[in-house]
Amino acid sequence: MTTWTIPGSPATTAETDIGAIINSIIADIKAAQPAQGSKPGAVIYIPPGDYSLKTRILIDISYLQIKGSGHGFTSSSIRYNSGNTSSWHEIWPGGSRIRVENTDGNAEAILIHRDGLPRQSSIELVDFCLDGVSFTPDQNSYRNGKIGIRSTTPTDSLRIVGMGMVYLERAIVVVEADALHITNNFLCECGSCVELVGSGQASMVNDNLIGAGPAGFSIFAEDHFGLIISGNNIFPRGKSSVHLKNATNNMVSANRLHAFYSGMITMEGACHNNLVSANHFLRNRESFPAFQNTPHPQDDLFGLVHVRGSGNTIVSNHFSFDVPSNAITPAGAKPTIVLVRSGDNNYVATNHHAANVAVNAVFLDGSTTNTKVLDCGSASEFQAANGATFGFRATP
Amino acid sequence: MTTWTIPGSPATTAETDIGAIINSIIADIKAAQPAQGSKPGAVIYIPPGDYSLKTRILIDISYLQIKGSGHGFTSSSIRYNSGNTSSWHEIWPGGSRIRVENTDGNAEAILIHRDGLPRQSSIELVDFCLDGVSFTPDQNSYRNGKIGIRSTTPTDSLRIVGMGMVYLERAIVVVEADALHITNNFLCECGSCVELVGSGQASMVNDNLIGAGPAGFSIFAEDHFGLIISGNNIFPRGKSSVHLKNATNNMVSANRLHAFYSGMITMEGACHNNLVSANHFLRNRESFPAFQNTPHPQDDLFGLVHVRGSGNTIVSNHFSFDVPSNAITPAGAKPTIVLVRSGDNNYVATNHHAANVAVNAVFLDGSTTNTKVLDCGSASEFQAANGATFGFRATP
Amino acid sequence: MTTWTIPGSPATTAETDIGAIINSIIADIKAAQPAQGSKPGAVIYIPPGDYSLKTRILIDISYLQIKGSGHGFTSSSIRYNSGNTSSWHEIWPGGSRIRVENTDGNAEAILIHRDGLPRQSSIELVDFCLDGVSFTPDQNSYRNGKIGIRSTTPTDSLRIVGMGMVYLERAIVVVEADALHITNNFLCECGSCVELVGSGQASMVNDNLIGAGPAGFSIFAEDHFGLIISGNNIFPRGKSSVHLKNATNNMVSANRLHAFYSGMITMEGACHNNLVSANHFLRNRESFPAFQNTPHPQDDLFGLVHVRGSGNTIVSNHFSFDVPSNAITPAGAKPTIVLVRSGDNNYVATNHHAANVAVNAVFLDGSTTNTKVLDCGSASEFQAANGATFGFRATP
Repeated sequence: MTTWTIPGSPATTAETDIGAIINSIIADIKAAQPAQGSKPGAVIYIPPGDYSLKTRILIDISYLQIKGSGHGFTSSSIRYNSGNTSSWHEIWPGGSRIRVENTDGNAEAILIHRDGLPRQSSIELVDFCLDGVSFTPDQNSYRNGKIGIRSTTPTDSLRIVGMGMVYLERAIVVVEADALHITNNFLCECGSCVELVGSGQASMVNDNLIGAGPAGFSIFAEDHFGLIISGNNIFPRGKSSVHLKNATNNMVSANRLHAFYSGMITMEGACHNNLVSANHFLRNRESFPAFQNTPHPQDDLFGLVHVRGSGNTIVSNHFSFDVPSNAITPAGAKPTIVLVRSGDNNYVATNHHAANVAVNAVFLDGSTTNTKVLDCGSASEFQAANGATFGFRATP
Repeated sequence: MTTWTIPGSPATTAETDIGAIINSIIADIKAAQPAQGSKPGAVIYIPPGDYSLKTRILIDISYLQIKGSGHGFTSSSIRYNSGNTSSWHEIWPGGSRIRVENTDGNAEAILIHRDGLPRQSSIELVDFCLDGVSFTPDQNSYRNGKIGIRSTTPTDSLRIVGMGMVYLERAIVVVEADALHITNNFLCECGSCVELVGSGQASMVNDNLIGAGPAGFSIFAEDHFGLIISGNNIFPRGKSSVHLKNATNNMVSANRLHAFYSGMITMEGACHNNLVSANHFLRNRESFPAFQNTPHPQDDLFGLVHVRGSGNTIVSNHFSFDVPSNAITPAGAKPTIVLVRSGDNNYVATNHHAANVAVNAVFLDGSTTNTKVLDCGSASEFQAANGATFGFRATP
Repeated sequence: MTTWTIPGSPATTAETDIGAIINSIIADIKAAQPAQGSKPGAVIYIPPGDYSLKTRILIDISYLQIKGSGHGFTSSSIRYNSGNTSSWHEIWPGGSRIRVENTDGNAEAILIHRDGLPRQSSIELVDFCLDGVSFTPDQNSYRNGKIGIRSTTPTDSLRIVGMGMVYLERAIVVVEADALHITNNFLCECGSCVELVGSGQASMVNDNLIGAGPAGFSIFAEDHFGLIISGNNIFPRGKSSVHLKNATNNMVSANRLHAFYSGMITMEGACHNNLVSANHFLRNRESFPAFQNTPHPQDDLFGLVHVRGSGNTIVSNHFSFDVPSNAITPAGAKPTIVLVRSGDNNYVATNHHAANVAVNAVFLDGSTTNTKVLDCGSASEFQAANGATFGFRATP
C-alpha cells in the first residue's frame, strides 16, 4: 500500500491520504476481478506508520481484508489531562495508525455500503488503529462528529478484530448485521463504541476491552436476535455498559462491567427472553476530577440492571455497589440493583451483591407480573410496588 | 505459494491444483529439514484468490502453518435457493478460497496423518476458505462426500483459527486430539461442522459461528475429557447443537444455541460430570421453506437437553421454546425442556424457560436416582416417572 | 529480521543471537522515529526457524509488534520422560522458535522496561515460541531460572497472543498492568505461567491453554482489580489453578480447571467481591509416575476453592472430586470443596459436586460471618466451625 500511486494523482501518498490510496486500490481490485464467477477480493496491508485519512474509504466489494500490524492504542484522555507533556516519550497512538481527518465532508473513516444483491460478505478489518485525534470543544467532550467504521447496507460475516479505536465520537456503527463478529478489539475513549442499529442476528461481540463516554453507549444493540455479548471488559464511563432496545433472545454472559452510573445493563422498549448470566458488575463513583460533575444519565432507582420486557433470565451475577451516600440520587434514596420495570415471567435468581449502603436487590414495578425473585437478598432488600405479582424467596 | 513450481510438473499451478502445490512445498520442507534436532516447520501463505484443489493435501510434519488472508464465507444456501442470480455482484465464497474438487479419489481437502512418534504438534490452519462448492443430488441435501480437515492419527496442540468452511459434508473431523483449539471460525452450511471422534482431552471449541445440516452435528465429541465448548454461536439446523458421547468432565458454558429440533444438547451413552451453564437456548420452528418438511430427528419429549449419565450439572441456563402446538410431536405431547434419561446424582437448577405452550421444565426417567431439580419451574412443570428418586423444589 | 546485520557485529545472525538482532532493530526504530509527535513503532517478523537467544531483548518503546508464524508447542516433558527417542520424527518445539539460552547474565528472554512517562503502550507479542529447552538439575524440576516475558515498569494495553511457551521457570511476569490482554496462548510445562504482580487493573487472561509445575502458579494475580479470567483450559500440575492475592472485584468465569491438589482457586490475604461462576473443576490424582510422590502444597481440608475475604460470589460451578481415600490428607479427613476461611458476606450457591468419597461441600471457618450457603449439598455435607454465622439451605 505504501508504494501505490493513484493514476492522475501521483502526489497523493498513504501518509497524506490513506483513504484515497485505499479507494484507488479497491477500484483496481474491481477492475481486476470483473467476472461474477470469481471475485475473491484481496488483502490490503497497512504497515506500522502514521497515516492521515482525508478521504473516506468506501468498501463496496466483498471479501476485502484490511490488515495492519498494531492496534496502537494509548490513552489520549490521560495525556490531554496531564498538563505539560513535553518530556513524554511519545504523545499519540501508534501502530498502523490512521488519523481520521476527513476533508471530504464525510463523517466516516470507513463506510461499508453496496446496493443490490447479495449482501456484502466477509469483510475483515484487522489490527490497525483509527484515531480521531482530538475532541471539540474540549478534550473531555467525546464530541467531534467522527465515525470509525460504519455500514449502511446489510452485511454477512463482517469481522472487526484486534483493532484499536480512540477519540472517535462513534467507533463502530453497523446496520442489519448477520453473523457479525467483533472480537479482541480495544475500543476506548470513544463517545460510543459498538452500535448495532436497525436490526441484526446471530452476531458476536466478545473479548473486547471497551469504554465509552458519558453520553454514549459502550455496546448498543437494537432489534437484535441471537447476539452473544460475552467476555468483554467494559470500563466506565458510558451512560450504560450494555444497552438492548427491542431485542429478543440474546445473551450477555461472563462480562466484567464497571460503571459510574446506574443502567449498566439497560433494556429499552420491549426486550424478551434475554439471558444475563455470570457477569461481574461494579458501580462506584467517578474518580477522574474532570468528569466528577457530569450529570448522571439515570438516578439510582433506575437499577444497575433495568429490565423492560418478558421472559428474561438474570442469574448468577455479582454486583458490587460502592457509592458514598451523599452521592446517591435522588438524595436519601435506597438504590436499586435490579429493576424490573415492565413485563411478565422475568426470572431473577442467585445474584449476590456487596454494597456499602442498604439497597434493594430487586424492585418490581407495579405493572409487572409473575416475576420470580429467588435468593437475591433478604426480605428487606426486596420491594414490589402495588399490583405486581411475583414469587419471592429470601436468602435464609 | 503462487510462484511455486512442482519439479517435473511445471504446468501445475496453485490455481489448477493447490493441493499438489502444497504437497510439493511440504516435500521441500522435509528435504530442507532432515535433522531430528531442528525441524521448525514452515508457513505456507495463501493470498486471496480462487484456487482449485484436485489433490488432497497430506500434512505429515509438525509445526506447519497454512495461512490465508480471508475466511471468505458467504451463504451458498441462500444463493442456491434464490432463483435467478444473474444480477448479483458475486455468487461464490471468496477470500483465500480453496474449491474442494478432489480428482484423486480422496474425500479430504486436508489430511493430517503421520505414523510413529511423537504425535504431530502445533499444526495451524488459519484464515482461509474451504468451499465444497455444491451438494448432490440437490443443493439442500448437505451431501457431497467432501471433508474439509481430517486427522487420522493423534495430534497435540492443533489449531484451527479464523477459517471459513462451507458446503462440505463434514467440515472438521479430528481423532484423538490433545489440546486442540478450534476458535473464531465460521463453520456453516456444512453437513457436520466439528466432529471430535475416537477420544480426546483438554481441548477447546470456542467463539465460533457454527451451523450444521439436519442430518449432522454442529459439535460432536466422543470420549472427550476436559473439553471446553464456550462462547459459540450455534445456528440451526443441525440435528443437535452439541452432542456428547461417552464424554466425562467437559464444560458447555456461555454458548448461544438456536435449533429447530429437540436434542439441542444430547448426551449419548454414558456422559458423566459435565457442566452445562450460562447458555441461551432457543428452539423454534424451521423458517426456510425448503426444509420445513424435513423429518425431525427427535420428538419433543426428547428434551432440549437430553441427559444420559451421572453427576452432570445443568444450571443458570435460559430456554426459549416457541413452536406452534400443531407442530409438536408426538401430537398433543407436552414438550420437555430437560430430560434426565439415565443416571444418578444429576443436578438441574436455576434454569428459566419462556414457552408459548405448557412444557415440562424437567422430566425424570424412571431409572434415574437422586436427581436434584431446583427452581426450574412450578410443580406442574415437573414430572418424574415411577421409580425415579429425586429432590424437587418448585419455584415459589 | 533474518537479513539484519548489526553495525559492528557482522557475524551475529538471528540464528546465533536473535536477542542481539532484535535489540539492534529496536535501536534502528528509535533512530528512525526521533520526533515525539510521530512514533508509530514497527513490526518485527520472525519466520519459522530455530533461533538462539543469547542476549535479552529489551523493549523500551511503545507500539512494537513482534510476530512469528507458529507457536510451536510440543511436550518436552513427555519427550524427556520417554527414554530412547532416537526414532522420533522430531524432538524439540518448533514454529518460530526461540531457544532461551542467555549468556548475558539475565534471566529474561524479553524484558519490557522504560522509565519516565507515559507508560509503554500497545506492545504486542504474537504467535512465536519461547522454549527454555531444559530444566535443572533434572527435567522434571521445573527449574532453570529462565523467564520468558517480564515487565518491570507499568504498561497499557500490552497484548500477548497466540504464543507457545514451554520449559521456562516463569513464562510471563507482568507488573502494574492496565488493560493487559493475554489470550489464545499455549503456556504449558512452565514452572509458573502467568504472574500479574504488584498491582493491575482492567485486564484479561482468557482462552488460553495453561499448565504450571507443582511449585508454581498457573495464573497468579496480586492486587488486581477488574481482571477477567475466563475460558481458560487450565491443566495440572500447578500448586493452584488460579491464585488471587489481595485482589478485589475480579471475575473467574467459564474456565475448566483440572488439578492434582486442593487450592485450585486460592484467595490469599484479603480478596473481596470476586465472582467465581460457571467453572468446571476436576480434582483427581497425579497420573504421571515421575510426580506421584511430589508433596502436596496443601492438604484436602484447604478446599478446592479457598476463600479469604468478603463479598465473594461462588455460584453455578461443577466440582468433580475423584481421589482414592488412602491418598487423602490428612489421613481419614473429609475433604473440603469450598472453604470460607475468613470474611463476611460471602455467597456460595447452586454449586454441584460429584465425589467418590464423602466431602464437605462447604466448610465455614469460625471467624466467618453472614455467609450464605444455598443448594450446595445436604446438611451432612455442610460444616460450620464454632462462631461462624451463616444462612444455610440444604438441597432437598
